[in-house]
Amino acid sequence: MYKWEKNLRVVEPYVPGFQPQQRNVIKLNTNENPYPPSPKVIQALQALDLDNAMRKYPDPNSGELVRALEHYHSLDEGQVFVGAGSDDVLAVAFLAFFNSELPVLFPDVTYSFYPVWTKMFGIPYREMPLDDGFRILTEDYRQENGGIVIANPNAPTGIAMARNEIEEILAANSASIVIVDEAYIDYGGESTLPLLLDYDNLVIVRTFSKSRAMAGARIGYAMANPRLIRAMNDVAQSINSYTKPTTSLVAAVASLADEKYFRDRIGDVLRTRARTIVELKKRSFSILPSSTNFVFASPGRVDAAHLFEELCAKNIFVRHFKSERIRDYLRITIGTDSEMDALFAAIDEII
Amino acid sequence: MYKWEKNLRVVEPYVPGFQPQQRNVIKLNTNENPYPPSPKVIQALQALDLDNAMRKYPDPNSGELVRALEHYHSLDEGQVFVGAGSDDVLAVAFLAFFNSELPVLFPDVTYSFYPVWTKMFGIPYREMPLDDGFRILTEDYRQENGGIVIANPNAPTGIAMARNEIEEILAANSASIVIVDEAYIDYGGESTLPLLLDYDNLVIVRTFSKSRAMAGARIGYAMANPRLIRAMNDVAQSINSYTKPTTSLVAAVASLADEKYFRDRIGDVLRTRARTIVELKKRSFSILPSSTNFVFASPGRVDAAHLFEELCAKNIFVRHFKSERIRDYLRITIGTDSEMDALFAAIDEII
Repeated sequence: MYKWEKNLRVVEPYVPGFQPQQRNVIKLNTNENPYPPSPKVIQALQALDLDNAMRKYPDPNSGELVRALEHYHSLDEGQVFVGAGSDDVLAVAFLAFFNSELPVLFPDVTYSFYPVWTKMFGIPYREMPLDDGFRILTEDYRQENGGIVIANPNAPTGIAMARNEIEEILAANSASIVIVDEAYIDYGGESTLPLLLDYDNLVIVRTFSKSRAMAGARIGYAMANPRLIRAMNDVAQSINSYTKPTTSLVAAVASLADEKYFRDRIGDVLRTRARTIVELKKRSFSILPSSTNFVFASPGRVDAAHLFEELCAKNIFVRHFKSERIRDYLRITIGTDSEMDALFAAIDEII
Repeated sequence: MYKWEKNLRVVEPYVPGFQPQQRNVIKLNTNENPYPPSPKVIQALQALDLDNAMRKYPDPNSGELVRALEHYHSLDEGQVFVGAGSDDVLAVAFLAFFNSELPVLFPDVTYSFYPVWTKMFGIPYREMPLDDGFRILTEDYRQENGGIVIANPNAPTGIAMARNEIEEILAANSASIVIVDEAYIDYGGESTLPLLLDYDNLVIVRTFSKSRAMAGARIGYAMANPRLIRAMNDVAQSINSYTKPTTSLVAAVASLADEKYFRDRIGDVLRTRARTIVELKKRSFSILPSSTNFVFASPGRVDAAHLFEELCAKNIFVRHFKSERIRDYLRITIGTDSEMDALFAAIDEII
């Protein structure tokens, strides 16, 4: 025991999906895009004056990217906050908005970083159980609270809520900030974006890590009314003025300029998702309705933890969560068709 | 007034130096390196498989860079933490180590982010006045405290403490964590690194933004005993698992592999610094002894705020701080010789 040990902060950190450093693996465990980003992204990076991009500080306000996002989503000035991945955006939002004595509400089965942030920042919280079909019940969010955070579509279930259900929650909570985490929205859900004008308590969070194939660049953003964006900027600039490297900012701007490529690759993933569901059902899996680039699937004929381990042994990585309600499921990212074929073959060998 | 406004966190953020987005300026206001990073850094970025670097998450443990830094500094495994710039490293260190009811101590004139972090995280603190020569008095750090943070060399003064003075503080505070912020150490000060084996309460913070010419990449690191590094990793992974993009990690590893280029460019800056001091003294400036890549200089014949404004008007940016003790000074980054010549000519026109 060190003399200073009593002053250390003791926290239980979030555990990200395993990131194997070797090459010959099939990685279906962290919902990355199986396709590269738009060629325009690569061209923008190759055209960059790297000497200057390295030696000078990036723009602390991410001005060019903020303006590009405002234009892309037809928003007014001051409605976009850019962070280093949506985890950074969400952490800043929790700090900026959840300062009440009342508990913040979120589902019991959802993105497992939410309870990590509340514990880290000393925010009281209450987990609201999903129903037996893993659905969010809007009536659970009609109680006194210090804020609400909903992933839509939810993870790891993959199930989306309808826009009018989210609107019900927004309308019932006009004195609370409601964060809607739309990390997977491009794969099927109804975005809450059209409600932004009508609800000043709405904060929508997005990421470049999934549908834009830029997990390695660390860019995420929030959309909300300007007062909320200002509060987020004040908090962010009180922790680290420069979180987004110039390379990542330039790549993100380029990504927004290639809508066709973006939509085409989403289409590819959706086609492979449909095929994956058919193939897994043939093998007796039960699968929750997915509006995301992953499926949450329970293998009927074999224990999920066992299948997870056996797949690991074959260098195929999917995600298994040990918490009680979901331990019978695997979260399987939609890869390329050939990656999924390798998965089906491996499952056939195991079961 | 919005109904949710009472729950917003109100903070006064750090104000970074102005980052002009136009090209034809002389930028001597944020202590960037006037020279690009090693050609090996540029080559490593050009050789990168950008498709994969973009679409996949970076290594959340920054394993390759951590090992390269341990090797570079001859440290044991587990003694290095990597963050998104030294601001990220310091913010994480404040959260991880400063959890006492007693005040954290730091000088009244120092990096102006220290009081921003303590306020942001609700950490009690006490600012210890520098003496009339802007020197840190070691006896000020012999009182009960919840931790200590010292920039060595200090900023914006540029003045370095001797290693034995830091050791005095470390020895007198064995129950507190002492953070030594060595952002500018490569330009002249004596590093505290040789004391790491003897003092388990020492945390040294470094950055790639200054001497390594990589401000745009956002990489900083801490060196300490493994128990402290573990506490930092737990806190960091409770906020954002992936803060450093793959491009930045790769660039940082390459930078460490070119010691000759690194030392040569430091030599260039030191030569220009010596010349700058001579030229400014000719123009009646008084200058504090600098162990950094900037000088802290008081213009004898003209008001510092006025000179700052006049230089801005000529597209030459230096830094002026409005706080009382230092409002007569300008912090001037050492640029290339031709940038400094342009500065001297502009000063001659103004005064």
